[in-house]
Amino acid sequence: MQNTQFSLKPLQYNGQTLTLLDQRLLPREEKYVECKTYEEVIDAIKLMIVRGAPAIGFAGAWACCLAAKQISDDAELLKAFTQINSARPTAVNLMKAVARMKAVLQHKGRESLEAEAEVIYREDEKMCEAMNAYGLTVLPNKSEYFILTHCNTGSLATAGLGTALGVIKLLAMQRKKVQVYATETRPYLQGSRLTAWELNKCGIPVTLIPDSAAAFLMQTKKLDAVFVGADRIVANGDTANKVGTYALALAAKAHAVPFYVVAPNTSVDVTLETGKEIEIEERTPLELTHFNGLQIAPEEIGFFNPSFDITPGSLVTAFITDKGVLSPSNLKSKIAG
Amino acid sequence: MQNTQFSLKPLQYNGQTLTLLDQRLLPREEKYVECKTYEEVIDAIKLMIVRGAPAIGFAGAWACCLAAKQISDDAELLKAFTQINSARPTAVNLMKAVARMKAVLQHKGRESLEAEAEVIYREDEKMCEAMNAYGLTVLPNKSEYFILTHCNTGSLATAGLGTALGVIKLLAMQRKKVQVYATETRPYLQGSRLTAWELNKCGIPVTLIPDSAAAFLMQTKKLDAVFVGADRIVANGDTANKVGTYALALAAKAHAVPFYVVAPNTSVDVTLETGKEIEIEERTPLELTHFNGLQIAPEEIGFFNPSFDITPGSLVTAFITDKGVLSPSNLKSKIAG
Repeated sequence: MQNTQFSLKPLQYNGQTLTLLDQRLLPREEKYVECKTYEEVIDAIKLMIVRGAPAIGFAGAWACCLAAKQISDDAELLKAFTQINSARPTAVNLMKAVARMKAVLQHKGRESLEAEAEVIYREDEKMCEAMNAYGLTVLPNKSEYFILTHCNTGSLATAGLGTALGVIKLLAMQRKKVQVYATETRPYLQGSRLTAWELNKCGIPVTLIPDSAAAFLMQTKKLDAVFVGADRIVANGDTANKVGTYALALAAKAHAVPFYVVAPNTSVDVTLETGKEIEIEERTPLELTHFNGLQIAPEEIGFFNPSFDITPGSLVTAFITDKGVLSPSNLKSKIAG
Repeated sequence: MQNTQFSLKPLQYNGQTLTLLDQRLLPREEKYVECKTYEEVIDAIKLMIVRGAPAIGFAGAWACCLAAKQISDDAELLKAFTQINSARPTAVNLMKAVARMKAVLQHKGRESLEAEAEVIYREDEKMCEAMNAYGLTVLPNKSEYFILTHCNTGSLATAGLGTALGVIKLLAMQRKKVQVYATETRPYLQGSRLTAWELNKCGIPVTLIPDSAAAFLMQTKKLDAVFVGADRIVANGDTANKVGTYALALAAKAHAVPFYVVAPNTSVDVTLETGKEIEIEERTPLELTHFNGLQIAPEEIGFFNPSFDITPGSLVTAFITDKGVLSPSNLKSKIAG
C-alpha cells in the first residue's frame, strides 16, 4: 500500500491561493475552498475547514505569505501575523510556525517567507516519516493488531501519513493485519467523518464506536495499543489533545493497554511546566444544540464544550516523536536539547 | 417546587390505548403516539419512542393488557407475552413485569391483568419516592451541589420524579442550589434531548457536556457526586447501564467523586452472578452513520454500537434502592431477602 491511495491534497499553496479541502463536508462531499487572503485562512482555521495541530501550523505559515502580499507596511504585517497566531489557542504548532515566519520577516525579509512556509510543510512531512517509523518499534511482533485511535491525526491533519494515524497506516502498509477502532469524536465528529473515511479510502479496516463505548470496548476486546495525537505537550508530559483523550487514557490504564501520544517535537512546549498552564479552547454551544440545522438540545441551558482536555503525563506509556520514543521524564531534555 | 412543574404524561393507559409521548422528537416537539395493539407497543419500545428501564417495564405490562384484548386463546396470548418480553434484552424490568403478568394470567385470569399493570405502575411511583429520599441521605449538607448524571432517568423514564434524576430533582425541590451536568449521551442523545429538556422544564440549572468531556470536567471542577440509573444490577454489583457509564465510573474513581447507582429493586437480577452474563443489546449502525437523514460516517466500515456497558460493582460507592442504601456486598441479601 502506498500513500498514493490517499490522493487528496487537503492543503495546496500555489503562491497566490491556499486551497483547502473543506473538512466540514466530509464524508459526503470532497469540495475545496480557495483562500486568497490571510483573513480567509484565519476564518478557515476558526471554522475548522482545516484542522489538526500540524496542519493549522502550516496553514498559518501560508496565511503569513498571503498577508505579505496584501500588506506593504512591515509593522502592519506583524499585526496580521499576530491575528493569525490567535486563530486558535491550544495547539502550539500554529504559534511556533508564526514565530518562525516573524523571525524570517525580521531577519531575512519578505522575499524569504514563502520558502520558509515550504520548509515548515516539508519538515512536517519528514517528522511524520520519523514518528511513523518510531511508532512501529513500540509494538510487539504479531499477526494481527487491534488499535484504538481518537479524533483525526492522519493525512487530513499533517503533511505526511499522519501522527497517531500515520503509525497505524504504516503498520498496515507493511502488510500487517490491523483492525482500527475509531471514536466518533463528538461534537465535531472527526472520527466518524474524517478518520473512518480516511482509513476506508486507504483500505484499512475500521470500526466506528461512540466515544462513550471505548471503555466497554477495552473490557470486551484485548487492544494492543491506543494511539492519539497532541495539540500541546508540556515539560512534565501533560498533554492537551482532543477532548476525550483523558477518558481514554484512564480506561487504557484500567485495562493495562499501552497508551501512546504521537506528535512532532513542534507540539512540545517546554516553556510551560504543567498542563494547568495550557489555555483550553471552548467552542460554541451550537456544536451541542444543533446538528445540520436540527435542534437537539434546549438553547436556554448552560454548556461546557471544551475542544481539548489534559491527559496527565503519568498516564502516557511513551511519547512517539520525530526525536525518538520518549518518556515523560526525558521528554524535556530531549526536545529542549 | 412540585412535580406538577413536570406536567407531561409520558405514558397513559385508558383501557383501550396506550398513549406515549414520542421521546424521539424531543426537545423540538411534544407529540403523542397512540398504541392500540401490543405489536405497536413492541415497536414503540424497539424504536425508543418510550425508553428507560422502569418505563419499558410498565409499557410492557400494558402491552400485555392490549394483547389480552386482541387474543382470545390463552396459549396464543402467552406467545404474545413472550414477544413483548423480547422487545429489548438488557433491562430486567421488562422481563420481571411480563413475568408478573404471566403469573396473573395463569393464577387469577385475564380480568386481573389491567389491575396488575396498574399495580406495577403505582409500585414504580412509590419506589421512586423511596429512592429519591434515600438518595438525599448520602449527600453532605451543603449550600450548593454540583452533580453529574448520564442518559435520562427522570419522569420520562419512570412513574415518579425518576431514579438518579429523581434524587437530583428532589434535592432541588428542597430549595437547595443544584448545578446539574448532563452528558449528551451519544448516540441517542438522551442527555441533550431529554434530561436537559426535563431539567430545564423543572427550572433546575443544567449544563450540557459532550460524553467525552466528563473526565475533564472532574479535573477542572469538584463534583459532589455522580448519579446514574441502571438497566440491570447483578448479584456481585456489576451494573448494566447506558453505554458510557463505565467510563464515568473510572473517571469518578480517579477524582474521588462518589459514584451512585440509583435503581429500584426490580432492576436487580440476583439470578446472574456477574456482569459478563448480562446480554448487552447492540443497536443499528444507522445511529452512527446518519443523523436526521444526513450521512455523518462512511457506511462500508464496521460499527460497534452497544446500547449499554457494564460497570464493575467495585466502582460503585453505593446502590440507592427503594430498599435502602446498599453496598455491593449486601445488595444480594437485601434484595433477594
